[in-house]
Amino acid sequence: MSSFPALLHTMPLPEDLGRALCVITGASKGFGRAVAQAVAGLVTPGSVLVLAARSGDELRALQAELDQPGPGRAGQAGVRTEVVVADVTRTEGLERIVQTSKEAFSESIEHIILVNNAGSLGDVSRYTKSFTDMAEVDSYLSLNVSSSLCLTARVLEAFPPNPGRRCTVINVSSLCALQPFPSWVLYCTGKAAREMMFKVLAEEEPDVRVLNYSPGPLDTAMQVEARSNTADPNIKKSFSDMFAKGQLLTCEESCAKLMKLLLEDTYTSGAHIDIYDL
Amino acid sequence: MSSFPALLHTMPLPEDLGRALCVITGASKGFGRAVAQAVAGLVTPGSVLVLAARSGDELRALQAELDQPGPGRAGQAGVRTEVVVADVTRTEGLERIVQTSKEAFSESIEHIILVNNAGSLGDVSRYTKSFTDMAEVDSYLSLNVSSSLCLTARVLEAFPPNPGRRCTVINVSSLCALQPFPSWVLYCTGKAAREMMFKVLAEEEPDVRVLNYSPGPLDTAMQVEARSNTADPNIKKSFSDMFAKGQLLTCEESCAKLMKLLLEDTYTSGAHIDIYDL
Repeated sequence: MSSFPALLHTMPLPEDLGRALCVITGASKGFGRAVAQAVAGLVTPGSVLVLAARSGDELRALQAELDQPGPGRAGQAGVRTEVVVADVTRTEGLERIVQTSKEAFSESIEHIILVNNAGSLGDVSRYTKSFTDMAEVDSYLSLNVSSSLCLTARVLEAFPPNPGRRCTVINVSSLCALQPFPSWVLYCTGKAAREMMFKVLAEEEPDVRVLNYSPGPLDTAMQVEARSNTADPNIKKSFSDMFAKGQLLTCEESCAKLMKLLLEDTYTSGAHIDIYDL
Repeated sequence: MSSFPALLHTMPLPEDLGRALCVITGASKGFGRAVAQAVAGLVTPGSVLVLAARSGDELRALQAELDQPGPGRAGQAGVRTEVVVADVTRTEGLERIVQTSKEAFSESIEHIILVNNAGSLGDVSRYTKSFTDMAEVDSYLSLNVSSSLCLTARVLEAFPPNPGRRCTVINVSSLCALQPFPSWVLYCTGKAAREMMFKVLAEEEPDVRVLNYSPGPLDTAMQVEARSNTADPNIKKSFSDMFAKGQLLTCEESCAKLMKLLLEDTYTSGAHIDIYDL
């Protein structure tokens, strides 16, 4: 006799995310880039990907790649990509992302997806007691907390939750949202703040699906920074060990799990889901 | 036969906090004011209270009250009070608090106590989706997160942890650090951020005692704001009901529990302790 979870596991998944308008911040590299690639292969014709980041060159390279013909490619699937070169810590940057999204929107869009991925590690080479500079902390929180709150609010304002149109907001979270790591005070503080913010959103908006997804230790530039610069010797060693033992995950692997979550769409809104729980 | 917890309960407490330099932010009213009054009665001669807030008039009124003769009063006990009129969101404000503390310090001080109490509720009359303004969110986080991180760092820099001198850092936390409340997105986000920040500090600094104290629903001006302005009808009603049923705590009651925690000094550094757990 199959258990209920086993049955769930064997249930056929929906095959796509619908005709979607998907906004991704930090889309030029790392996990954000992988999300763009994965979403491009899972949305239906008439969808639009709005790719935002500071680096225009990298964004345009991604756009060119997605627009190439081929299976799972946006171009082939009738999916448009829009590039927004924007700094999300600037109001003007948020405005441009929302303006581009509005222009790309059509009434046939069935699903708004916002992926709050942009973020930074902060200086992990120092301990809490060295963070005496207000400007440094303010600027970290602006990028990692305020911008995701204000962009989410602006996207919800532009595309109000609507029973006829799904709306999914993803926060790229971290184990650091739940657990303190020595010499990672900015990162842990910012991730804890974001996690709570999206939990409040989930409480407030029953028509919005909110997911705090912790993608695991990814083989990205941020990991290089982590294992090179972390002040705490134990944390630094654990990152170096994970790298040496091949335990880092590729962005594609982690992204595939995220896509499975989005397709299944059975998570509790506001929940923190770690890749290792899947 | 007495159980271990019962024995603990009957163990005599240390009677004082030692010869302390105690810095309190938001000391002019509410919980911060009550902490100043309570600490004044629990420190030994030669101690100094550094009372910081934006309102000079209220701080000086508190200073005059504490300096009056009488049992448990700072004046009588040989305890000095220093007033610092300062905005903790400004570097200059933090500098003045630390400068005053340095000038008040003497080598006979046995215990540095920092009470990170200053904070604001944020606009609870609106839901997350309305927080589109970066400047509003940035400024909230600067007061409620950056300032407590940077002040703590500056105090630790001025008075480095030292085996011969106790150091206690208190974060005035909240249930909102752990649990999302609709229409309280700024408050919940800020408190979650602060809580994590101090958990990281506790991991990093074994010689510092770090306490995240959740003082409960207090009968303060912030509560008036909460029950008058909260957008979410259920949360608003629960605050009005608590008030109507006399369930709000006085600052003095909650402060007495905090003082007991500090005197016992057996809490796990970095822990979140709610008044209702005591």
